[in-house]
Amino acid sequence: MSDAATVLERCAALGEVSEEDGLLVRRYGTEALRRANALVSGWMRAAGMEVREDAVGNLIGRLGDSDRSLMLGSHLDTVRDAGRYDGPLGVLVALAAVERMREPLPFAVEVIGFADEEGVRFGTAYLGSAAVAGRFDPRWLQVRDADGVALADLLRGEPATAARVPADLLGYVEVHIEQGPVLEQLGEPVGVVTAIAGQTHADVCFVGEAGHAGTVPMEGRRDALAAAAEWVLAVERAGVLATVGRLDVDPGARNVIPARAALTLDVRDPDDAVRQAAVTVLHTQAGEIAARRGLDLEWADTADIPAVAMDERLTSALDVPVRLPSGAGHDAAMMASITPAAMLFVRCRGGISHNPAESVDEADVAVAIDVLERFLHAV
Amino acid sequence: MSDAATVLERCAALGEVSEEDGLLVRRYGTEALRRANALVSGWMRAAGMEVREDAVGNLIGRLGDSDRSLMLGSHLDTVRDAGRYDGPLGVLVALAAVERMREPLPFAVEVIGFADEEGVRFGTAYLGSAAVAGRFDPRWLQVRDADGVALADLLRGEPATAARVPADLLGYVEVHIEQGPVLEQLGEPVGVVTAIAGQTHADVCFVGEAGHAGTVPMEGRRDALAAAAEWVLAVERAGVLATVGRLDVDPGARNVIPARAALTLDVRDPDDAVRQAAVTVLHTQAGEIAARRGLDLEWADTADIPAVAMDERLTSALDVPVRLPSGAGHDAAMMASITPAAMLFVRCRGGISHNPAESVDEADVAVAIDVLERFLHAV
Repeated sequence: MSDAATVLERCAALGEVSEEDGLLVRRYGTEALRRANALVSGWMRAAGMEVREDAVGNLIGRLGDSDRSLMLGSHLDTVRDAGRYDGPLGVLVALAAVERMREPLPFAVEVIGFADEEGVRFGTAYLGSAAVAGRFDPRWLQVRDADGVALADLLRGEPATAARVPADLLGYVEVHIEQGPVLEQLGEPVGVVTAIAGQTHADVCFVGEAGHAGTVPMEGRRDALAAAAEWVLAVERAGVLATVGRLDVDPGARNVIPARAALTLDVRDPDDAVRQAAVTVLHTQAGEIAARRGLDLEWADTADIPAVAMDERLTSALDVPVRLPSGAGHDAAMMASITPAAMLFVRCRGGISHNPAESVDEADVAVAIDVLERFLHAV
Repeated sequence: MSDAATVLERCAALGEVSEEDGLLVRRYGTEALRRANALVSGWMRAAGMEVREDAVGNLIGRLGDSDRSLMLGSHLDTVRDAGRYDGPLGVLVALAAVERMREPLPFAVEVIGFADEEGVRFGTAYLGSAAVAGRFDPRWLQVRDADGVALADLLRGEPATAARVPADLLGYVEVHIEQGPVLEQLGEPVGVVTAIAGQTHADVCFVGEAGHAGTVPMEGRRDALAAAAEWVLAVERAGVLATVGRLDVDPGARNVIPARAALTLDVRDPDDAVRQAAVTVLHTQAGEIAARRGLDLEWADTADIPAVAMDERLTSALDVPVRLPSGAGHDAAMMASITPAAMLFVRCRGGISHNPAESVDEADVAVAIDVLERFLHAV
């Protein structure tokens, strides 16, 4: 069996390790994630790696005696009703590249399976890589899941002990499915990531006045939904990756003019200045639409996450001609705060992720393993 | 105390008769509606009327010996968290006009308080007037409320016995708050209704494709909400009274491109041809928007209610210069199917209805009583 076929078989095996029957979900601190770690541990040990779990439950296999190590990896937790590849593919391609090593490298290689990237259970996205980067948020110790279970009770030790010393690390390289259609459209199996886009999140609400759909003339209306509709189209034309994913209308009845329309804004761009300028324009446009219609505007910025550039030396060493930004966040963004980081995207069918229909081609996985293998000898 | 002050005092007293403490709600078949009927019965009897309830619970006071009667009235049920005037004002203004009669008329006068116009409990709007018009829907016998109580168990007899013989009726006149801002804008206390607008209701859904807000480029998107937004603005410009009161986005997450956007359409016009032409244009526009964006369109007509013209002779006899259509439905539309019907709107503050803030001026109520009193002697 080819190495790529083995990777896909292992992804399939991990895809069976779930909290629920009939769909894949593996959240932080669950028995399912413990079983996934156990499965991957076995493969790591078979590859000659020393295996441990750190204080937050990240799984780490290490090969080599050097004090300094290159880390490869991704996450082993999933969203609910997930596909098999978002996360695990990166861990298993890394392991496949390690399995191909025929001679010792001048540095140790570690393969890491982060325990919480999706943050589904506790709202703690990037918890695993944050702990490794020394950025475990102390507020997380107070967080409880929907069943009242405290995150603190799931830790295996003091989170600070999971933090790595930057001087001990040569870098971090993450393989991940693209989660978008760009490589498919380009007809390319893999691409390197230039930067992980910055993000602005905002909660926006147009506040008008409810009224009877049959009795208030059109010219006197202060329809919050009509204002929101104008702005949704402005967002679409903003010139950056910008999305209104939610729109909630209040009171939300067929025969009542909407009094409130609450929307979410998500803007992403690899260039923070471009992103912030676009958000400023959108904020201004929302204000103008509201003012022209006699409405009030409520605007709350809920996140402003800077873009993270990938390390140029590591990225070049991956030696892949196709370059693209990542609109989605990844553990590599967190790891970049303590060590040079790079990412390799693998084409996925239809750009689909966070869905059981996630799919990658064996030939593309083979290319990714080859790229990573060559990288380990070139870097 | 003036007659108008008495009407307002009675509206206030009825406003205290509620199913719930702290807000006004009086639905069909409830103890609260029985108490309201008892209160109004007392006032009717004091005015010399014979009082009865029909099989569906409509309260009917009658004065005079003639075989033929003129009916005046409105409804005594309310929406939840209602104002005091939507419904009761029409019953109590009618009663005040009867109380002013100093000599017998050549016809009997009946004041009716319909038991269910809002249809809040069972989804049976106009049940009261439908029964009187001989249009009680037999399917209503199967309907149960949210607690499982059957409508059939709340009837006082065979619904068909509530139906009136058209030959016994001279007409039906309903006084009602406008529920809109037109009279207030015109600076007029009252106005007569030319027609009750026809209505089209439709459920419309744009079906696109979900995708990750960070990874799917803008040019490849099939964003259902963006399509819906375009169409909401088309509805606003349709040239008729047209409202999108609901918009539900699926999946409805900040970082997911909307796959489905489901909207309600409500179009009203006193001219059925105008209304139907506008709906045809909106349907075509929705199809064009969907096609241009590579989306599917789902369209379900859920109601097509013809306009009901008020009777010109009765309307003229009300002798009020201001004429306006009613965008809201009323019992008069149902009554018009068996007898000439007319309506008198009373200005309400801010056009507000279905809300505790409903408000009418005593001076305007005085005008309405005068109009109705003169009408009774003129008709």
